[in-house]
Amino acid sequence: MKELTRIEAAEFFRSHDNYCILTHRRPDGDTLGSAAALCRGLRAFGKHADILENPEITDKYRNLHEGLTCVKCPEDATVVSVDVASEKLLNPDFAALLPRLQLLIDHHGSNTHFAPQGIVDPGSAACGELIYDILTELGVEMDKSMAEAVYTAVAADTGCFRYSNTTAHTLRTAAACLEAGADAYPINKALFETNRMSRLKLEAYLAQHLELHAGGTIALVLIPLEVEHECGVNEDDMESISNFARNVEGVQLAVTFRTDKAGATKLSVRSAPGYNASAVCAELGGGGHVAAAGAKVECNQAQAREKVLEILSQQGYL
Amino acid sequence: MKELTRIEAAEFFRSHDNYCILTHRRPDGDTLGSAAALCRGLRAFGKHADILENPEITDKYRNLHEGLTCVKCPEDATVVSVDVASEKLLNPDFAALLPRLQLLIDHHGSNTHFAPQGIVDPGSAACGELIYDILTELGVEMDKSMAEAVYTAVAADTGCFRYSNTTAHTLRTAAACLEAGADAYPINKALFETNRMSRLKLEAYLAQHLELHAGGTIALVLIPLEVEHECGVNEDDMESISNFARNVEGVQLAVTFRTDKAGATKLSVRSAPGYNASAVCAELGGGGHVAAAGAKVECNQAQAREKVLEILSQQGYL
Repeated sequence: MKELTRIEAAEFFRSHDNYCILTHRRPDGDTLGSAAALCRGLRAFGKHADILENPEITDKYRNLHEGLTCVKCPEDATVVSVDVASEKLLNPDFAALLPRLQLLIDHHGSNTHFAPQGIVDPGSAACGELIYDILTELGVEMDKSMAEAVYTAVAADTGCFRYSNTTAHTLRTAAACLEAGADAYPINKALFETNRMSRLKLEAYLAQHLELHAGGTIALVLIPLEVEHECGVNEDDMESISNFARNVEGVQLAVTFRTDKAGATKLSVRSAPGYNASAVCAELGGGGHVAAAGAKVECNQAQAREKVLEILSQQGYL
Repeated sequence: MKELTRIEAAEFFRSHDNYCILTHRRPDGDTLGSAAALCRGLRAFGKHADILENPEITDKYRNLHEGLTCVKCPEDATVVSVDVASEKLLNPDFAALLPRLQLLIDHHGSNTHFAPQGIVDPGSAACGELIYDILTELGVEMDKSMAEAVYTAVAADTGCFRYSNTTAHTLRTAAACLEAGADAYPINKALFETNRMSRLKLEAYLAQHLELHAGGTIALVLIPLEVEHECGVNEDDMESISNFARNVEGVQLAVTFRTDKAGATKLSVRSAPGYNASAVCAELGGGGHVAAAGAKVECNQAQAREKVLEILSQQGYL
């Protein structure tokens, strides 16, 4: 893949007339916001552009793509993808378009470079930052809708500027969105300050069943499948559930246990500096990063708990 | 009070040599961060400056003032206050210094102008933004500690840029802090991503006892004093507890009931656009803003609940 500069990417968009934009599976605020901003920006620049309708878009984001989608990619359209790290993360229905993909814009260090050219900048907290840079390069002035799309992308991928990926450029991009008229508060409210009762019920269970060890530095939390059913949670509710135990005051390493459809136990480990989540998971055949790792073990939660306690003890945490 | 421009405030700081900085009671990240940034900035500018030790400073913020405090205001020091809206919000021990207060820097619209001169800018989300502007005006370049103090102030008063008071200037101030070397993530983690078990236990209780009416648009939540005791919560834990019910999906108006030491019931009402928290509280002799209001009623929670339901019914919400 040929890596483009922002200037070259802007040149690419100047040199074609009709665009079709692809987003990734289980779409989040970054891929959807990036697509909406790029689509609106290209239209404002006088180009024809549409987003290929993502069948998995959720209610939370539906209005972001209103009036911007097509159900079939036009024959003559130039195909680009936003925030898609690998061809495997495209909807299977989009697979036929892969040979036609001409440009990818992404910020994942793990990007598999599945297009002939692209921009991959892992230094950007969100793909939305890259879209903003390219639109600025094109001389497109953001209107309110465009600014709200960029803002959604940037806020979504940084937990509203809380995560460690947030940079000065991220904050300046968000500032530019506000200056262009973005009404950020309703977006923040919907994305970060609205809790489903099902999630709150699950958190209530977790608060009551959290197991603390080693003076409160190690936390284990088992989530039986029956509890998930009783609380009525969906996969959206389970997003970042492994942070729950991690965020308890004093906890340095947290292990969350879930049961998958086949009855195996999935572990998710989160840790603070000085504690190694990855090393714990490696003992169980899993992996990940020092601060966030996972593993799957072919046993029930009680048995998995015993194994984890043994490993934590061996590694000197208990 | 003479209202100063930022340029005039910078001139004020140029024209004296020894400063003593006051913070407000129940000190938060904005007053403490503003004081630390101003103190460090003035020292970097070649002045003598100290913060008068605030006896109510909590562990969360203690390191912010390390090496910056004095236990007694020097006789010859010029006294300034940061983020203090009224003389009543100063520690009683500081009261003797009131006649010596020469400048106040604040962002509360309700400021009582209790100094001969000052800057009061309600357009600033945090007092820390004003401190940053004044230091910039003085030509002080922020170092890491100064930048982290400004960042703490700005992040604290905006819920990490989530609240509706956040402006482009707020975000640009935070961006400047990151550029100056502020390590924002540990601050965000401590301020926004660390939960005490006592608070989580209380939230677990609330999730299980939340009362929904009118198709889930109205939420009532009663917090008996015994429950507060059982969970072991302190006043820090109770901060923004009235947002809990407000943030449940679908809820447009939420009423939180607590019992005070004298046995009266304190109501806290939060509402979304189209719902009037203030009008509900006015019926009970209370007041506040359209979106956030409060009232105190001389009866127990069960009786207060009946009154509230009656008012909500009269006002067409039920």
